[in-house]
Amino acid sequence: MSSTLANSREPRISRPANLRRSNNRALLQLVRENSPCSRADLVRMSGLSAPTVTAAIADLEALELIEYLGEGISSGGRPAELLRFRPEHAYVAGADIGGTRLRMMLADLDGRPVAQWACKLGAREKDPVSICHLLRGGLTQMCAQAKVSLKKVKHLTVGAPGVTDVARGVVLSAPNLTGWDEVQLRALLEDQLGFEVIAENDTNLAAVGEHWHGAAENVDDFVFIAMGTGVGAGIFLGGQVHHGSAWSAGEIGYLGVPGMPREPLEMHRTGQLESVIGGAGIEAQWREELDRVTRVDAELRALRASQIFDRAASGDVQGKAVLKNTARILADAIATITLLFNPSLVVMGGGIGSHLALCEAVGGVLAESDFPHPRVRCSVLGPEAQLYGSVALSLQAMDSKLLG
Amino acid sequence: MSSTLANSREPRISRPANLRRSNNRALLQLVRENSPCSRADLVRMSGLSAPTVTAAIADLEALELIEYLGEGISSGGRPAELLRFRPEHAYVAGADIGGTRLRMMLADLDGRPVAQWACKLGAREKDPVSICHLLRGGLTQMCAQAKVSLKKVKHLTVGAPGVTDVARGVVLSAPNLTGWDEVQLRALLEDQLGFEVIAENDTNLAAVGEHWHGAAENVDDFVFIAMGTGVGAGIFLGGQVHHGSAWSAGEIGYLGVPGMPREPLEMHRTGQLESVIGGAGIEAQWREELDRVTRVDAELRALRASQIFDRAASGDVQGKAVLKNTARILADAIATITLLFNPSLVVMGGGIGSHLALCEAVGGVLAESDFPHPRVRCSVLGPEAQLYGSVALSLQAMDSKLLG
Repeated sequence: MSSTLANSREPRISRPANLRRSNNRALLQLVRENSPCSRADLVRMSGLSAPTVTAAIADLEALELIEYLGEGISSGGRPAELLRFRPEHAYVAGADIGGTRLRMMLADLDGRPVAQWACKLGAREKDPVSICHLLRGGLTQMCAQAKVSLKKVKHLTVGAPGVTDVARGVVLSAPNLTGWDEVQLRALLEDQLGFEVIAENDTNLAAVGEHWHGAAENVDDFVFIAMGTGVGAGIFLGGQVHHGSAWSAGEIGYLGVPGMPREPLEMHRTGQLESVIGGAGIEAQWREELDRVTRVDAELRALRASQIFDRAASGDVQGKAVLKNTARILADAIATITLLFNPSLVVMGGGIGSHLALCEAVGGVLAESDFPHPRVRCSVLGPEAQLYGSVALSLQAMDSKLLG
Repeated sequence: MSSTLANSREPRISRPANLRRSNNRALLQLVRENSPCSRADLVRMSGLSAPTVTAAIADLEALELIEYLGEGISSGGRPAELLRFRPEHAYVAGADIGGTRLRMMLADLDGRPVAQWACKLGAREKDPVSICHLLRGGLTQMCAQAKVSLKKVKHLTVGAPGVTDVARGVVLSAPNLTGWDEVQLRALLEDQLGFEVIAENDTNLAAVGEHWHGAAENVDDFVFIAMGTGVGAGIFLGGQVHHGSAWSAGEIGYLGVPGMPREPLEMHRTGQLESVIGGAGIEAQWREELDRVTRVDAELRALRASQIFDRAASGDVQGKAVLKNTARILADAIATITLLFNPSLVVMGGGIGSHLALCEAVGGVLAESDFPHPRVRCSVLGPEAQLYGSVALSLQAMDSKLLG
């Protein structure tokens, strides 16, 4: 049953002028969720009168949002004609600005990806204007690939690796991209593209993606922890991202590490938690472990964090020590999150965070406490989480615009 | 303008059968917010037709929710009759179960307190059944005092000093009340009183109270920190309490203290933060400071936390050291809260937490960081915050029931 119709149990005062529009919206939703379906199905599911449903169908057909499939199979009487939603009516794009590359996805109104695109970012291409040009080029290429007219793309959501004011569309600070302070990313892209854009923090988008089609489906209160070069979290409460009053909720990289002395937080320095269990921190732990062993070759010393966890998983003593220490510190951060939010689920993402060995080790540490603790699950979407989240937000933004 | 009517801009599908009811609800709200007002005022404010308003007034009068004041002053033509909301139509009660005493408040439908009551809890009166009897007695006494028939009291919200499952009305654990594990507080009281009851955690109720009529009016995202014997927080997000998946969000007494080693959390032991800056912790800090000075009398050693802060405020060296250390540790906890939630406001409450010297000292420590940090304000309602919060929740629960 459509959520829009379900809400009608709590009636509001409606002016007749708005009723036709709200009926159309509810019926469009019913067709989207039940394609293909007949006019009789819609009368039955909506509880609206047959003439009202007929009028709504005419409106939605005229807008090219739905169409008749032809004759369906009737249970007797005259054959029912089946209606379907037209997901190809319009398209939305998602984009992720990383420290080293750009990625994009194009999807139809059903959220089905129809094209993807990626490029490496040269050192001189990391300024906002160059990135906007690259994104426009990527969009054109995806449209060509999917044989979709550029005019049919109606919305883009872009993820930025920094604190982002979603209301103003401004990236406030992005430590991994020099010169990205107070960048009017939404305005730049809207000028470039001619349609609406949302700018959002990349970790928040990954949380949205995991909620939409990943490890947190049907879980409306959870925390997504991204561990890679950096360490951050997307706080998802009541079915949406919790941003906080200065758009900086979830900056867990600055949390304290047990036993370490605490200085006042400084925004432009690496946070304490990130310095110990971010990629560089884990690699430093590894070299420290190796230094206790004689005769270690340079190649071994240069392993990256996820390779170190791979070794731990196959029994390497030093690898296991690093894994255990990282899991303990991460579990303490999750305990802190639990004391404040008490979520039922933590989703571990990012290149390092989604390592299965780490997820398992953290779950083990949390189980040592008799405190209620969240389930810990690995990301399902992996590096695609941000792109799926972008598409999800764009589709949500489109919903209210489909009826003009 | 009424919020109910404002919402009508986003129309839902309404069945005609429900329209009269929703019109009545909206008009009742308008009379409540604009008492006294005329029928013509209501037509103008609601945008509804005069006959619709007339019918709604008749319904609301029959329910004894509104009444005519008599003849008002007209701007010409025939005198307008003024309508007023009848706050004495029903009453709600709030209650707070403390470790050492019970307190109650009775309020009319405007939320105006009409009576208060309190009693000390004897050692043998702290079991759930005795407390329910005492609460019933308190209610009777308040009714007598305010000359209100007991039958007119329609709702009670009760605050418990422990983790409370609001959906089931069960106190899961209350460390300061022996034997209070899995207590069906709501069911016990509803049996005793014969009307609906809400059971909620006392710190959450204090947060609700400060939001309703205290330091957090018009602030929909804030954290209320209660410091007394215990240390806890009420997390207020999007205009309501955030409870978490196991009803334990805001258990900040278990947060870590910088520089201290971290053990797995144990639910039945005092948390690390509480052990250092709860009442007993502050008093232990004080004795430690005194031990550095020779010849200290027993009376001085036995000072309570708020007296120690009083001395700090008047320049005492040892008092200032304790205040400074407590403020630093508290500021670290607020920094942790900020990294996760990024609220714009923290309200300090509880017998120790609302001490002005502590609030000022904490604000000073937070200002040392260039991180966006919340304003810190002292509780406005003090020890009454829980009672006001109880009344607020009861009034909210009543709102949907006034029309039967």
